[in-house]
Amino acid sequence: MRQVVMHAPGDVRVEERPDPVLIEPTDAIIKLAATCICGSDLWPYRGAERVEDAVMGHEYVGVVTEVGAAVKDIEVGDFVVGSFFTSDNTCEICQAGYQSHCVHRTPMGGEGTQAEYARVPNADGTLVATPGQPGADLVPSLLAASDVLGTGWFAAVAAEAGPGKTVAVVGDGAVGLSAILAATQLGAERIIAMSRHPNRQALARDFGATDIVEERGDDGVARIKELTGGLGAHSVVEAVGTQAAMDQAIRSTRAGGHVGFVGVSHDVSLPGQELFFSGVHLHGGPAPVRRFLPDLIRLIWERAIDPGAVFDLTLPLEDAAEGYRVMDERRATKVLLTV
Amino acid sequence: MRQVVMHAPGDVRVEERPDPVLIEPTDAIIKLAATCICGSDLWPYRGAERVEDAVMGHEYVGVVTEVGAAVKDIEVGDFVVGSFFTSDNTCEICQAGYQSHCVHRTPMGGEGTQAEYARVPNADGTLVATPGQPGADLVPSLLAASDVLGTGWFAAVAAEAGPGKTVAVVGDGAVGLSAILAATQLGAERIIAMSRHPNRQALARDFGATDIVEERGDDGVARIKELTGGLGAHSVVEAVGTQAAMDQAIRSTRAGGHVGFVGVSHDVSLPGQELFFSGVHLHGGPAPVRRFLPDLIRLIWERAIDPGAVFDLTLPLEDAAEGYRVMDERRATKVLLTV
Repeated sequence: MRQVVMHAPGDVRVEERPDPVLIEPTDAIIKLAATCICGSDLWPYRGAERVEDAVMGHEYVGVVTEVGAAVKDIEVGDFVVGSFFTSDNTCEICQAGYQSHCVHRTPMGGEGTQAEYARVPNADGTLVATPGQPGADLVPSLLAASDVLGTGWFAAVAAEAGPGKTVAVVGDGAVGLSAILAATQLGAERIIAMSRHPNRQALARDFGATDIVEERGDDGVARIKELTGGLGAHSVVEAVGTQAAMDQAIRSTRAGGHVGFVGVSHDVSLPGQELFFSGVHLHGGPAPVRRFLPDLIRLIWERAIDPGAVFDLTLPLEDAAEGYRVMDERRATKVLLTV
Repeated sequence: MRQVVMHAPGDVRVEERPDPVLIEPTDAIIKLAATCICGSDLWPYRGAERVEDAVMGHEYVGVVTEVGAAVKDIEVGDFVVGSFFTSDNTCEICQAGYQSHCVHRTPMGGEGTQAEYARVPNADGTLVATPGQPGADLVPSLLAASDVLGTGWFAAVAAEAGPGKTVAVVGDGAVGLSAILAATQLGAERIIAMSRHPNRQALARDFGATDIVEERGDDGVARIKELTGGLGAHSVVEAVGTQAAMDQAIRSTRAGGHVGFVGVSHDVSLPGQELFFSGVHLHGGPAPVRRFLPDLIRLIWERAIDPGAVFDLTLPLEDAAEGYRVMDERRATKVLLTV
């Protein structure tokens, strides 16, 4: 099959690799319908993480072509959505809604999903079948549910976005934009998008943002305070993963408020004393997307939400290198690869 | 009046100082019945915080002797309990239960409560009157409510201690012990006290601890994991304020679990990436004791709890220097000063 391989920072190629095969009886094999490039794939692309001949990708939707002997709920022919960690969905941690920390989790990134086929371990606990074969127009939204929407949704839930709340979102990438969509669906009263890119601002407004703040850092914090009677937002989503974004998120939150952080932290260090005196709640990490998938699929199927709008460029898998380049140069927010 | 002054690290004296007077119309003056020495008073005593001719103390119970013209709910003659931050109890932050971050808060430590009298700003929003004049046996417990019990209670609530939960408590000082008492009252299923001091272990058991872990650091974490099926505790209280204690607390918590941290963080730095992948909830800071005072006073009044047991030494105010010395040398957990 054809598969995306990153040989070194900046060096992405599509190569012929062996088709995946069932290894565990709980595995499924899927034929990808679509996959995409994640903001986190840019860390190694830019040399900020070590990389050498790595298969890429952890977002996926597609059709099941084969299941192991122990798979009971997922069937060949199902159109399915999964996420970046597989999970048994039965352990105590999964039952508490933290499937991304499942005691039997495996990372989908290990074998890569920017490919024609993928093996999905823990198939029953990981994959959620759609009610039928989706129309082509629904595929981008279902793919978004696989990671960015699920992650943005978790961030909004972690930040306790809801009725009566003012929510601020730090980060205008696909996850931040998805968090705005989630906050809207969760009933937030006011949603402040922190963005200085006109096209992302426009999508933020489409997704329900009521205010745009272009300032960053201390100025951004000051502006959020101004907009919230000097107190700060009730709920703040951090969807970047840098020290500056984390500081901005914590400082924009009122005492007793909630920060939901989902940007993969790189070289971030939180000063204990500042955190102590801030009085905020902090929660985040790799999103337990599986918790939200049934609801997200339903909303997408009913066309109540259109999270696929975060994809502003679609390319065939074969042109993955171009996709990485365009995302790296910030000429696209999120690139969908058709398979 | 007589008042405790710390002239320099290790140099505590009781001196003659002017009686406090009403400054704002919302002030009250109280005659202290008892006050005490806080673990946080030991930071400057040990030279870990700068100190020079500072009046000391922020815990207090006593009788109101004078009220300002704007005070409506508190009356002269009331026996009252307050906490270390005053609060208006009406602002948006107070109404959300975060009175220690009130927009009009003032620190009681600024004028000191290790004294015969104290001025309490924001009297109506800060002080809670007991149902009548307490018997002498209730005074230590009411004084505990002023800080350590309220702080331990907040820590247990922040850690979401409750039915079905396994709660671990890092720190066996008065706050940690109070958190154990709180977790018991909140209905926790299992409470693990981390302590290697026999007398503190005994009090921990009196307060409801079901297990004692003597190991610290990585060994302590491993022991908590062993006791919790490899997952970690649902709820962990950090009641120390050091890097080691914070690391131990976060690492002892299962993914999706809650850390309540109330030790005043000194030189603590949290690595973002570890926090991210831990998947825990983190919440803490200066406890909004006022939120809990009415309930705590009721429980004490009904003799349902005996938090005053954390005081293992009682001295007259005049012997404050001896009290500091004994606490510094860990020969007492918590020293009550009678006034």
